[in-house]
Amino acid sequence: MAVPMTPLLKDELDIVIPTIRNLEFLEMWRPYLQPYHLIIVQDGDPTRSIKIPEGFDYELYNRNDINRILGPKASCISFKDSACRCFGYMVSKKKYIFTIDDDCFVAKDPSGKEINALEQHIKNILSPSTPFFFNTLYDPFRDGADFVRGYPFSLRPGVPTAVSHGLWLNIPDYDAPTQLVKPLERNTRYVDAVLTIPKGTLFPMCGMNLTFNRELIGPAMYFGLMGDGQPIGRYDDMWAGWCVKVICDHLGLGVKTGLPYIWHSKASNPFVNLKKEYKGIFWQEDIIPFFQAATLSNEATTVQQCYIELSKQVKEKLGKIDPYFDTLSDAMVTWIEAWDELNPPKKAELPNGAAK
Amino acid sequence: MAVPMTPLLKDELDIVIPTIRNLEFLEMWRPYLQPYHLIIVQDGDPTRSIKIPEGFDYELYNRNDINRILGPKASCISFKDSACRCFGYMVSKKKYIFTIDDDCFVAKDPSGKEINALEQHIKNILSPSTPFFFNTLYDPFRDGADFVRGYPFSLRPGVPTAVSHGLWLNIPDYDAPTQLVKPLERNTRYVDAVLTIPKGTLFPMCGMNLTFNRELIGPAMYFGLMGDGQPIGRYDDMWAGWCVKVICDHLGLGVKTGLPYIWHSKASNPFVNLKKEYKGIFWQEDIIPFFQAATLSNEATTVQQCYIELSKQVKEKLGKIDPYFDTLSDAMVTWIEAWDELNPPKKAELPNGAAK
Repeated sequence: MAVPMTPLLKDELDIVIPTIRNLEFLEMWRPYLQPYHLIIVQDGDPTRSIKIPEGFDYELYNRNDINRILGPKASCISFKDSACRCFGYMVSKKKYIFTIDDDCFVAKDPSGKEINALEQHIKNILSPSTPFFFNTLYDPFRDGADFVRGYPFSLRPGVPTAVSHGLWLNIPDYDAPTQLVKPLERNTRYVDAVLTIPKGTLFPMCGMNLTFNRELIGPAMYFGLMGDGQPIGRYDDMWAGWCVKVICDHLGLGVKTGLPYIWHSKASNPFVNLKKEYKGIFWQEDIIPFFQAATLSNEATTVQQCYIELSKQVKEKLGKIDPYFDTLSDAMVTWIEAWDELNPPKKAELPNGAAK
Repeated sequence: MAVPMTPLLKDELDIVIPTIRNLEFLEMWRPYLQPYHLIIVQDGDPTRSIKIPEGFDYELYNRNDINRILGPKASCISFKDSACRCFGYMVSKKKYIFTIDDDCFVAKDPSGKEINALEQHIKNILSPSTPFFFNTLYDPFRDGADFVRGYPFSLRPGVPTAVSHGLWLNIPDYDAPTQLVKPLERNTRYVDAVLTIPKGTLFPMCGMNLTFNRELIGPAMYFGLMGDGQPIGRYDDMWAGWCVKVICDHLGLGVKTGLPYIWHSKASNPFVNLKKEYKGIFWQEDIIPFFQAATLSNEATTVQQCYIELSKQVKEKLGKIDPYFDTLSDAMVTWIEAWDELNPPKKAELPNGAAK
């Protein structure tokens, strides 16, 4: 099944970037990102200024801005960690978000052509997902592909896609132990596929190259408490991914992974990473079974309701592992309160249709 | 994680082919298949002779042979339909089976090199599967790949792989309605990936280009009752795939799909296919939810026990749809009886270790 020509979504998509330390980054992406509005969330010292090259339309938030806008609720936003990027998801007013790290450059496809990552994300997110049955020729909505023999026709319309998870050539997204064991491994395999992650299956969502539909799943895209003052780092996107997937499965929404690739230019320091990760490496052995077993009630019909239910289960089931999860559970609630404050329900969404 | 050099498995693998009508077929595959033993199962008129080129080591079975070997139990083997190939799985004495259709030729990879499909299947089947969590860089056991950040370490050893499902360039494996709507569509996309189909997810297993471990899953590879005297065709491999996947999930075995590709040379007639398929197109709307909901008891610890449990559920739940499923359920039991007759348990497998 083919989808029509990719629209640009210029007025419907924001680009969210954690602190830009790498000046080349925006220049390299200029042809692709300049048509869009940028939201940059500075993770460190608010007095340090960030230079944005001319021609970009952007807003920049530092810690002082976050504190001013959210007040005491700013406690749910990580400090000195790129997890703070989720503040950008909250202040955006657009339907779609593309988030990317500043060490991710434009990749080339096997023919040598530059990959317009955002265009592929838009294709992914605008075409349905198929989480209920696996299609062996991958995304049936791509040009030249379709559903294969034996695919039930009732499932072919698919469900709305909430998330498009892109991948990385060059430096793969490995954990510290794997980085240490395989310091020279590079991802050179261009896999020309997009696929829906089946219902009931969790995946490791990486925040380096990610697009999502804010209206469908935004309130679940919380990147948790990482970095300064926290016992853990580098699990911000993972945490969001596990919550997002459980909620998408509950609400009948789709998550795609695969294309587009970006070029991940440099590996972060494995020793620093190990320090950030080591508790997570233990904890994920309990966190994954927790999310695999998590169920949400029939009453939870909005992302917010789902997320609040999940936060309670986090406190109840993961609080035993470490007090960190009590704090995280509270922060999940604060995040939703802050989200709703900045994103009040539209008039049309009021239950009886009456204006506020 | 890398696996060691691919062994040939010459003495451990049989090639099963339904009737060879296409004489070019074996010549094209000669460099790849000649080292192996071939089991050819003739689907039609037993008086018609099949010419096998010199140099191949093969055994050929026609309907008279099947009747002679299985006696009354031959009723479980389809007549005048390539579904009869599963008789070959039963008479083989090897650990692995590669089955391929005679309209499948050697494909080329994007660099123009001929693809040794069997070598890739062997790689797939000898390396573990990872059905409990999705790895975004696909098969972590391929050269140059690994598990990504956030993948629980306890799940990284994986589980034994029971099935390797290969794909097709050129003519895609579409159902009749899709063939009719898209007569000119060709699969030209070479997706350089192998992946585990997650636990709990069903897929449309195509028998054109398939490898499996007989010892792990053989008795579930029954291709059902199709063709002559049956109300349905072209669901033989699908039926096997659904049963196989439910049983693999229950027993903790893996199913991989993706590479290798073969070149599927010609589309079968969509009008003929529609006639064979149309009941299946209705029925699969009930069959898929049936298999998605099917659970096996803790007592079912062998493939045979699982399959017999499944056969009872088929009778109970699908028998309502059409009497065909009663017949099929009985045939599933007959198939297991015939399998056990031709494949008696090895002495070491006797419960108390005593020789028979």
